[in-house]
Amino acid sequence: MSTRLSIFAIPGIPLVQPGDDLASFILDGLAAMGESLAAGDIVVVAQKIISKAEGRLVSLGTVMPSARAEELAGVTGKDPRVVELVLQESREVLRAKTNVLIVEQNLGLVIANAGIDRSNVEGGSEDMALLLPVDPDASARALRETLIERSGADVAVVIADSVGRAWRYGTTGMAIGCAGLEPLWDQRGDTDMFGKVLEVTEVAVADQVASAANLAMGEARERTPAAIVRGLDTPRRERPATALVRARKEDMFR
Amino acid sequence: MSTRLSIFAIPGIPLVQPGDDLASFILDGLAAMGESLAAGDIVVVAQKIISKAEGRLVSLGTVMPSARAEELAGVTGKDPRVVELVLQESREVLRAKTNVLIVEQNLGLVIANAGIDRSNVEGGSEDMALLLPVDPDASARALRETLIERSGADVAVVIADSVGRAWRYGTTGMAIGCAGLEPLWDQRGDTDMFGKVLEVTEVAVADQVASAANLAMGEARERTPAAIVRGLDTPRRERPATALVRARKEDMFR
Repeated sequence: MSTRLSIFAIPGIPLVQPGDDLASFILDGLAAMGESLAAGDIVVVAQKIISKAEGRLVSLGTVMPSARAEELAGVTGKDPRVVELVLQESREVLRAKTNVLIVEQNLGLVIANAGIDRSNVEGGSEDMALLLPVDPDASARALRETLIERSGADVAVVIADSVGRAWRYGTTGMAIGCAGLEPLWDQRGDTDMFGKVLEVTEVAVADQVASAANLAMGEARERTPAAIVRGLDTPRRERPATALVRARKEDMFR
Repeated sequence: MSTRLSIFAIPGIPLVQPGDDLASFILDGLAAMGESLAAGDIVVVAQKIISKAEGRLVSLGTVMPSARAEELAGVTGKDPRVVELVLQESREVLRAKTNVLIVEQNLGLVIANAGIDRSNVEGGSEDMALLLPVDPDASARALRETLIERSGADVAVVIADSVGRAWRYGTTGMAIGCAGLEPLWDQRGDTDMFGKVLEVTEVAVADQVASAANLAMGEARERTPAAIVRGLDTPRRERPATALVRARKEDMFR
């Protein structure tokens, strides 16, 4: 039997406000399309609505840029208040030049602008910024528990962002939080079908799940910030998405 | 209507030899599972079988390492004959240290070992290496034409490899060749649902398709080096996978 995956976006999720109950939105959206959660489903949720529900929206009017932020704003051409938030959300600046500010975000993620987003922010206001969740693995665990409690189905949760890459154009999915699945399948030491031991085959399954879900969720023009990935036979082992972050001592490109 | 994707691996594809007709293997595999190609399907094929069909398997016994290859073999601990092939397949060495050799491959791809693979090579022989196709976009175009001719369905083709990343553990899918689809959806200048103009939203759709297909194809233990991604509503514009390779002058991490 070959693996057969079904991936579909959950439409009808309303604009998310701080404190909103995302589990309800997801379950209601599924019910409206005649679907329900099944054991083994992976519920993929866009980072944006997790951040919004957790109140990670910051009014730039409240941000006082530091001297370092002003300096980097000059280099990058970015709003000094946004740069200040990027610095607060980061451990280290890796690259700064016109239109580009790449950092090690507080979670260890190497990411542009610390993952801070100014699009799709309610009200069309220009002076708001949306930060990444403080602990997306914890967010995923909490959402998973609620979904299991209310649906009875043993599902997994992945919180997905879309990020750029050093040597490729275009964004792809990245799992910044997960619960109930193994994000990294370690096949080192397994043998291939000819009996030869594979040297290194670790598969970033959670990132691939995020990318697959992105295809169904589409981008900003459609309001589908959640999707179901159904049919993936994942190992029972469970780790957080931080397991995907390469250790700094192994980084050859900083 | 939300996008609903169906992704399934094509089982029963035999071991591939040079000159083999991959289109037949794909169509026979689909028929054996009661499936057939439909217009809009994306046929994702693992790089390995494209390379094998194109005779890109090299016996290491025929390879004479250069002085530079011997030197890099000393640094990396790799077989000097494999390093010689890596150098022949590359424009530049980016990083070399124990167990690591990262290059700009001849197609412009920044990739470990120039994408050369020693696992899953027929006969269990240790002294064979499999190179990337010379022109994977051309390979994808040729396969697409044959599939359309024989099936009558207007399908797209993506040739997928699995590659590591600078700041993340685990491999994800990368489209090294494609035909019949737009690999990079450029949404710059579009507005989000609040009317705000998105600054940069280019989506690497072909890479995400490769990752999604990887989930269904599994890894080396199952012989499913091809999969169908069905239900993705892609733009009619068409470009090769080389459109995904970031221009060298924009590379900040070399």
